[in-house]
Formats: sequence, structure tokens, C-alpha cells
Amino acid sequence: MPITMHSASVPVFVRMLNNMLGWLDKAEAYANTRKFDPDNFVGMRLTLDMLPLARQIQISTDHVKGCTARLAGIQPPKWADEEKTLDELRARIRKAIEYAESIPAAQFEGSDTREIELPVGPGRTMKFPGETFLKSFSLPNFYFHVTMTYALLRQGGVDLGKMDYLGAP
Amino acid sequence: MPITMHSASVPVFVRMLNNMLGWLDKAEAYANTRKFDPDNFVGMRLTLDMLPLARQIQISTDHVKGCTARLAGIQPPKWADEEKTLDELRARIRKAIEYAESIPAAQFEGSDTREIELPVGPGRTMKFPGETFLKSFSLPNFYFHVTMTYALLRQGGVDLGKMDYLGAP
Repeated sequence: MPITMHSASVPVFVRMLNNMLGWLDKAEAYANTRKFDPDNFVGMRLTLDMLPLARQIQISTDHVKGCTARLAGIQPPKWADEEKTLDELRARIRKAIEYAESIPAAQFEGSDTREIELPVGPGRTMKFPGETFLKSFSLPNFYFHVTMTYALLRQGGVDLGKMDYLGAP
Repeated sequence: MPITMHSASVPVFVRMLNNMLGWLDKAEAYANTRKFDPDNFVGMRLTLDMLPLARQIQISTDHVKGCTARLAGIQPPKWADEEKTLDELRARIRKAIEYAESIPAAQFEGSDTREIELPVGPGRTMKFPGETFLKSFSLPNFYFHVTMTYALLRQGGVDLGKMDYLGAP
């Protein structure tokens, strides 16, 4: 099978989101061992002018729904950014997995060259061919916020390694 | 044009590597403004048990040469990990760009399903189809080390934003 817009997006997102669920489980176990509230991780920032862990996970999952919906030619759903606990963040991650997996692969066909319109502010849209949108916008943004989540947990003392990051191939 | 193994790898790597060159330029300018040695960034670590900036850049570029060579069916070159200055790290990044761009796109054809053998230790190899190698190993690893480089520079006070990270589409 040649690589496709579906194979280059949905399984990539789903694998990394499943890995993130594993990191949050390890974070919770670590907090329990050290007897602190696991939800203390939720507000962690790498530096004061960077976004906290909750936003890193919200934005990661926003890119998943935004990318998969737009490639499939549907309007992405709006999700409130109200998660305040690890449990709520895990639910958000699971919602993104279910959403990405719910779109039939056939709907991605032809999205390589289809024009994607992305609202980027009041009255402003960016336009890209689908392949550029996936490769130069969605995937780099997704990996950015996923890696920031990992970095925050590592900085918070959670025993994560490269295999936790990569997950099973 | 449909997405291909070449279009999903070489231009992705090259764009992000060019972005990194811009980050290092901003880091140097910031160091000069604040009157400290720009090479002080080279040894920065996010936490004590994570790799320093130089290693993040060396590993990012290793994934570029390793991925592009293996998908094209060639043996990746060995590069010594001896960079100690921002200038040397910039040269390493440029070498990776030149290497990735030197391989004819036609050599990537059929690499989606071709078996890739990856040495992972004494007498041990991992085997994947090329598409899995690209999507589940090379790209996530590449983005990990690229984002860690960005995170280190941000933590070091360099004024970088999402547009520096993403670069021009």
C-alpha cells in the first residue's frame, strides 16, 4: 500500500495520543508514590511565558480534530477548553482518538491537493493544499505540543523514556 | 500530486532544519545583546537527566540522514558528534539539509513497503516497512529533538514564537 493522506495522519495521531495516555498514567502513579496531588501537573509550565500542561494537551487534540475534519471536508467540532484534572485531560485525549477514528478513510481521498481553508483570526483565513496543511501545519504543531507535554512531565520528575514517547510501532 | 514517501520526508526535514538555523541566529543575537557567550546555549539541559542542546541537534540531524538514506536504500554516512559551538551546530544542520536534498526523489519510490533494517544495538536490528519507519520512528523522533531544541532556547530566554517554529509553509 502506498502512503496516503489518511495513513499519514489518523494512525500517527492515534498512536501518539495513546502514548500520552500512558504518560499521564505514569504521572499519576508518580504523584501517588510521592504523595502529592496528581492534578498539580495540570498547571505546570516550562517557563512563565509558555502554556501550561492542560493547554498543551488541549491544543494537541485540537490539531487532531482540526486536521482530520478539514482533510475529510467536514467542519471540526468545537470543544470547550475546560479540563482541570488529569482525568478530564485523559477524557479529552480519548475523545480525540474516537473522533479521528470515526471518519471513514475514503473521505481523505484527494485531500492531498484539495484546498484547505483555515480560519486564523477575525476575517482572516489561510489557504493551503491539503498535503501542505498536514505536513507544514498540523503535524509539526501536533508534535510540538505533544513533546512539550512530555517535557513538562519529565521536568516534573515522571520516569518517562524514549519508548514511552514512541510507543509500539 | 499525491503524497509520497519523498514528499512526506525530505521537504519536512529541510523546512524544520532551516527553521532551526533561524532559531540559532536569534539565540546568538540574544546572547550578544545580553553580553554572554552564545556557545553557553550548547550545554543547556531541560533537566539534569536529559540531553544537552548539542545532542538534541546532533540527534535531529542523525534522524534526517538515517531516514532519508534508509528509505533510498543506501547506507547512512557516519558523522562524528563533535560540535561544541553554535557555528559548528549550524554547519551540522546545513550538512543534513544538503544530504537529504542530494538523494534523488526517484530512489524513494516503493519505500512505503520496502523492509527497513535498523541496527539498534550489538547484533540487534529492528525491521519495519518503510512507511512505519518514517511515521512511527523517524518523524516522531525528529520532531521530539527539534522541539526540545526549541524548548531549551525558549527556556534560555530567546524570543521565539510559533511562527519561528513553523517557518514558512
